[in-house]
Amino acid sequence: MIIRRCFFLVCCAAVSLSLSAQQVDSLFVRRIFDEALVNGHSYQRLGELCKTIGHRLSGSAQAEKGVAWALDMLRSYRFDSVYTQDVIVPVWERSETEALWLRSKALSTQLRNKHKPADYLCEAFEELPLKPAARYRLQAVALGGSVGTSGEVKGKIIVVNSKAELDSLGKAGRIKGAFVLFNRSFDERLINTFAAYGSCVGQRVNGASEAARFGAAAVLVRSMTNRCDLHAHTGVMIYDDSVPRIPAMAVASAIANLLERLQQEDPDLELAMQLGCRTLPDRPSHNVIAATRGAVFPNRIIAFGGHFDSWDQGEGAHDDGAGCMHAFEALRILKALNYQPRHTLRCVFWMNEENGLRGAKLYAREAQRIGETHVAALESDRGGFTPRGFGVDTLIRKKLLPYSYLLEPYGIATLEPGGGGADIGPLKSVDPSVALLSFLPDPQRYFDVHHAETDVFENVNRRELELGAASVAVMVVLLDQLLD
Amino acid sequence: MIIRRCFFLVCCAAVSLSLSAQQVDSLFVRRIFDEALVNGHSYQRLGELCKTIGHRLSGSAQAEKGVAWALDMLRSYRFDSVYTQDVIVPVWERSETEALWLRSKALSTQLRNKHKPADYLCEAFEELPLKPAARYRLQAVALGGSVGTSGEVKGKIIVVNSKAELDSLGKAGRIKGAFVLFNRSFDERLINTFAAYGSCVGQRVNGASEAARFGAAAVLVRSMTNRCDLHAHTGVMIYDDSVPRIPAMAVASAIANLLERLQQEDPDLELAMQLGCRTLPDRPSHNVIAATRGAVFPNRIIAFGGHFDSWDQGEGAHDDGAGCMHAFEALRILKALNYQPRHTLRCVFWMNEENGLRGAKLYAREAQRIGETHVAALESDRGGFTPRGFGVDTLIRKKLLPYSYLLEPYGIATLEPGGGGADIGPLKSVDPSVALLSFLPDPQRYFDVHHAETDVFENVNRRELELGAASVAVMVVLLDQLLD
Repeated sequence: MIIRRCFFLVCCAAVSLSLSAQQVDSLFVRRIFDEALVNGHSYQRLGELCKTIGHRLSGSAQAEKGVAWALDMLRSYRFDSVYTQDVIVPVWERSETEALWLRSKALSTQLRNKHKPADYLCEAFEELPLKPAARYRLQAVALGGSVGTSGEVKGKIIVVNSKAELDSLGKAGRIKGAFVLFNRSFDERLINTFAAYGSCVGQRVNGASEAARFGAAAVLVRSMTNRCDLHAHTGVMIYDDSVPRIPAMAVASAIANLLERLQQEDPDLELAMQLGCRTLPDRPSHNVIAATRGAVFPNRIIAFGGHFDSWDQGEGAHDDGAGCMHAFEALRILKALNYQPRHTLRCVFWMNEENGLRGAKLYAREAQRIGETHVAALESDRGGFTPRGFGVDTLIRKKLLPYSYLLEPYGIATLEPGGGGADIGPLKSVDPSVALLSFLPDPQRYFDVHHAETDVFENVNRRELELGAASVAVMVVLLDQLLD
Repeated sequence: MIIRRCFFLVCCAAVSLSLSAQQVDSLFVRRIFDEALVNGHSYQRLGELCKTIGHRLSGSAQAEKGVAWALDMLRSYRFDSVYTQDVIVPVWERSETEALWLRSKALSTQLRNKHKPADYLCEAFEELPLKPAARYRLQAVALGGSVGTSGEVKGKIIVVNSKAELDSLGKAGRIKGAFVLFNRSFDERLINTFAAYGSCVGQRVNGASEAARFGAAAVLVRSMTNRCDLHAHTGVMIYDDSVPRIPAMAVASAIANLLERLQQEDPDLELAMQLGCRTLPDRPSHNVIAATRGAVFPNRIIAFGGHFDSWDQGEGAHDDGAGCMHAFEALRILKALNYQPRHTLRCVFWMNEENGLRGAKLYAREAQRIGETHVAALESDRGGFTPRGFGVDTLIRKKLLPYSYLLEPYGIATLEPGGGGADIGPLKSVDPSVALLSFLPDPQRYFDVHHAETDVFENVNRRELELGAASVAVMVVLLDQLLD
């Protein structure tokens, strides 16, 4: 019995190995990496995107310029098809009127030295030339979706590190009229920084309405980052319609630390905020798609991509220009190597991941409407860092595991159970049989730049980006060969 | 037979697992990482070293200031012993007189646009405002060990990409009186950038004497880097005493590309060099050592460290401040966790790795002289990037492999056969039974900064450094538990 079962397993393995051996062997994987590292286009194209377009907030003129650039760029490669999908996106606009000030009657220049650590430490912040009663502008940016203020809003500061603390202070009447600083920091023990982000981001997304419930005047949120520095990291926040909408800003992590310390010494510390940001009516925008037609299963699709929109800080280089360039470059490499896919391979630049997911929802809805079948979808939205592997849907993980030997020489053999992502999730909702995969680069530096002015092309390393593109291309080929 | 053998193997595994279970289990590994990530000292100490001392060229006053800093720093932790070893080191000094100029009668401003790529590409270089007959200073630095010039040396430029090309041009009399540019670039296909470095660095080390054999006036070497930019990367060069000593400089990779292109258009392109660098008599210096005494085998040593000297560009942050801080922090973490080592654990900051290896040789000689036994030695000299694993001596690799499950959650389970390093090699020469290990961080960015002005603290990521220190600590504990 055992022998017969083993024999059966060996036969299966042999069949599946010979199937894939047509086009996925170690030599072909090597050719993919060589093409990315020697003739790579991803870095140059990302540079163009970042430096000639810049950031691409949904609904902005820059996002639409970016879409035009992407179409021209993809068409220049003569893929089988390049087209757009119309999407209606929300529009939130930052204003030049955007400031947070600190004023303290009690603080003196004494504090300056007391709180000034050595410049080279992670605790570094610019020296605030504190003088009693003067006011100082702090490093802060409006959160995406925040309402503006009418004139200046002022209040004392209350620091909270948890929902429980907020509730307790709220019930004690301490929140009313105050600026609530949500200051929970990343758990540095977590090796995967995305897990740390996941356990903190709730205060950014929901903090304003939670504080408004107790009558807060405004909300400040510690930037979602592992670093302690002077860059404020924006990101989406969502109002609960059952409470008044109060303005919300992200403060740089070093400023959050400073405020917490100063507040302990001077509970009457006063903050003032002025925001001109606003939400405008929805506008038309686009997903951008390029595809190579499948030779065997033209109506069965493997989609891979990232989101084309970005926050309006920095250039959307790692988030998610890199993911879009990974996907484009994977399609380009396979065309350059004359790879004939069995399935239709589709590179997708989804619009509006950051504050609405309208592009991804439209994409899934359209697929369902016209009866398209997606066999797999892979998302790259964790930056352009050195690749480590993939999160893989348990639907197909066992099928992929025997091929991890092909990935090992490139350090990308991690195949974590469970894949997914914001932009491919909606596909799974309409068809649970779609296998979802996440591209997993090294996560250590992602939140250094995420949603901040530092997410610029200069902070992307050419080889790290190229290795990521090659990794995505290899996984696409494996999926194409192993799935029906 | 098969059953009995299996039983034997299971017993062996059980014994060895229970041996290590005293102090190496997944919980202890977790505590090591927590200590590094939450209470880590490596980043702060590296910042102090880089910003209060700076670079540490062997024999320089800064290197000696650094030694004093290291002694004070290590003593503040009250390790069982902290001491120095006297080492006599070579002294080479750069001078303020250090320049490379380009002059061309034929070049016009036309060339400027023709050769100017978009700024955001890796090919970026500053625009040279070329005018006929004017001269321009190029981004270049003397190689370590180079002789100076007496006044200005002038010559036409000859570009070579291989030893064979040099020999062929030399035999044709084309090298005589010329500036030879060794322009072989890194093989970008190699995933491990150290392999690319290994196949190019010969032109830097030996190029001057090879070119001098054919009467060259001076040598330029393309910087050893994966990037194409304007930072010149220095490094050691060695003269062959059978030929005249000619001056040698590293040119930035973008400048090497520019020179190759310009030379094709104007073979009469003229270069001029002036160098005031010189070699002075040897001076006394020091290895710095901190140790925790072994409870079971006090006379059997596990050494781990990096080199304390650096080149005089940048701050020696990744090369090799990071390696020293990995080792110090590993010792600190184990003390903080009250780990009682079986062997004596010794953190070593070797002096003079870059241009002489005098510290490492002295260390090995001293160990032999006083009859010390090293059971293992681990070197960290590949920068402070995200850890991936270790190179492991085949002597002990089989012993370690069953414990790779402890390393997997931290992404450091790569245990490549073969470990070693410049500073631990001499130990093996005097005692082949010493197991050598290399710490292997991600190699993609190392040669972006190696030996260049960009090797500064700002280019070290806190978490990447801390994860490296924890990885070294974990490996030290495994060695301590598994070896006799």
